[in-house]
Amino acid sequence: MFVAKVVGKVISTQKSEHLLGAKLLIIKPVDDNYNTIEDDAVVAVDTVGAGYGEYVLIAWGHSFCSEKQISADLCIVGIVDEIQRE
Amino acid sequence: MFVAKVVGKVISTQKSEHLLGAKLLIIKPVDDNYNTIEDDAVVAVDTVGAGYGEYVLIAWGHSFCSEKQISADLCIVGIVDEIQRE
Amino acid sequence: MFVAKVVGKVISTQKSEHLLGAKLLIIKPVDDNYNTIEDDAVVAVDTVGAGYGEYVLIAWGHSFCSEKQISADLCIVGIVDEIQRE
Amino acid sequence: MFVAKVVGKVISTQKSEHLLGAKLLIIKPVDDNYNTIEDDAVVAVDTVGAGYGEYVLIAWGHSFCSEKQISADLCIVGIVDEIQRE
Amino acid sequence: MFVAKVVGKVISTQKSEHLLGAKLLIIKPVDDNYNTIEDDAVVAVDTVGAGYGEYVLIAWGHSFCSEKQISADLCIVGIVDEIQRE
Repeated sequence: MFVAKVVGKVISTQKSEHLLGAKLLIIKPVDDNYNTIEDDAVVAVDTVGAGYGEYVLIAWGHSFCSEKQISADLCIVGIVDEIQRE
Repeated sequence: MFVAKVVGKVISTQKSEHLLGAKLLIIKPVDDNYNTIEDDAVVAVDTVGAGYGEYVLIAWGHSFCSEKQISADLCIVGIVDEIQRE
Repeated sequence: MFVAKVVGKVISTQKSEHLLGAKLLIIKPVDDNYNTIEDDAVVAVDTVGAGYGEYVLIAWGHSFCSEKQISADLCIVGIVDEIQRE
Repeated sequence: MFVAKVVGKVISTQKSEHLLGAKLLIIKPVDDNYNTIEDDAVVAVDTVGAGYGEYVLIAWGHSFCSEKQISADLCIVGIVDEIQRE
Repeated sequence: MFVAKVVGKVISTQKSEHLLGAKLLIIKPVDDNYNTIEDDAVVAVDTVGAGYGEYVLIAWGHSFCSEKQISADLCIVGIVDEIQRE
């Protein structure tokens, strides 16, 4: 898993039936000081009700993202309240 | 998943039976301003009818790409209408 | 697998049921001289009782991280006592 | 998948039984102008009869590479006749 | 798969039961001239009797590394006798 910030949303009308009803959010990985790392447009399916600007926990793999018959390779599995550092 | 632009096509006569009938498109990842990122020639199987120049949603993994007995590791699972930014 | 140092912890109240009860630690990969490599905030689930500042062995994949009904993509599977070099 | 060039071969006498009989080729990823990208020595199992200097299609994952009881994580699944660009 | 050099060993007393009895070797990827590439401390389970300084073939994924009830994500599946270049 990794921590990322929600920075946008993808609108897609024509898509796989596995993604029907999925909320597709653009996320950017952050370091442990919450700085976003510039990267290509990574898209994760939301499963916890995340919103713009929030810091979230992203998981790879299909097992997490299988609610409501949605299937995805990256999904948002938690809202990050705080990163506590050593 | 990530957003990419369709920039070309691969022609392959001699190939695995898992790819028979598959449309093999060359894609380039983009950032959230639709700028393409230079990269090696990544190839995805199209499942939604994508065309040259279109922005598409790419998924990793076999579960998405299994229609018509085609099996692939990367596939196009949506046409991107718009990226809405924060 | 790779060797990493535990440098922090993620607090998440609103999260997937697969992560209920999981200890979510921020880890940083190290080289074989124990120098940490700057990276984004990678999060692993602890399964061996690791603490802040410890060097740990990280495994990818779900099969390792399935105790107590927790499911994760990266987990801590060992405490590193020593790296012996050639 | 990605496009690569076959540049060499690995000889290994002492190996896993999953690789018995496998042709182990060294491949280098290319961009869409067929320029090779310098990289570490990546090894793929051939399933389509590829030869030195040929451009090939590489797939990740075990499902493609399971003929003749050979199991691998990267394999050559097609010979590239041509890359057509936009 | 990729070719790597064995450069060290990890000692871990407190570890997952999936790793009991596993030989945990530190490996460094090499290019096709056998030059090691500096990287973080990657750890693979040995299944073929590899030793310090040897060039080995590394596979990703669990299916290779399941002998003696050991489970791992990266393992050594062959000793490289020679890399033949085009």
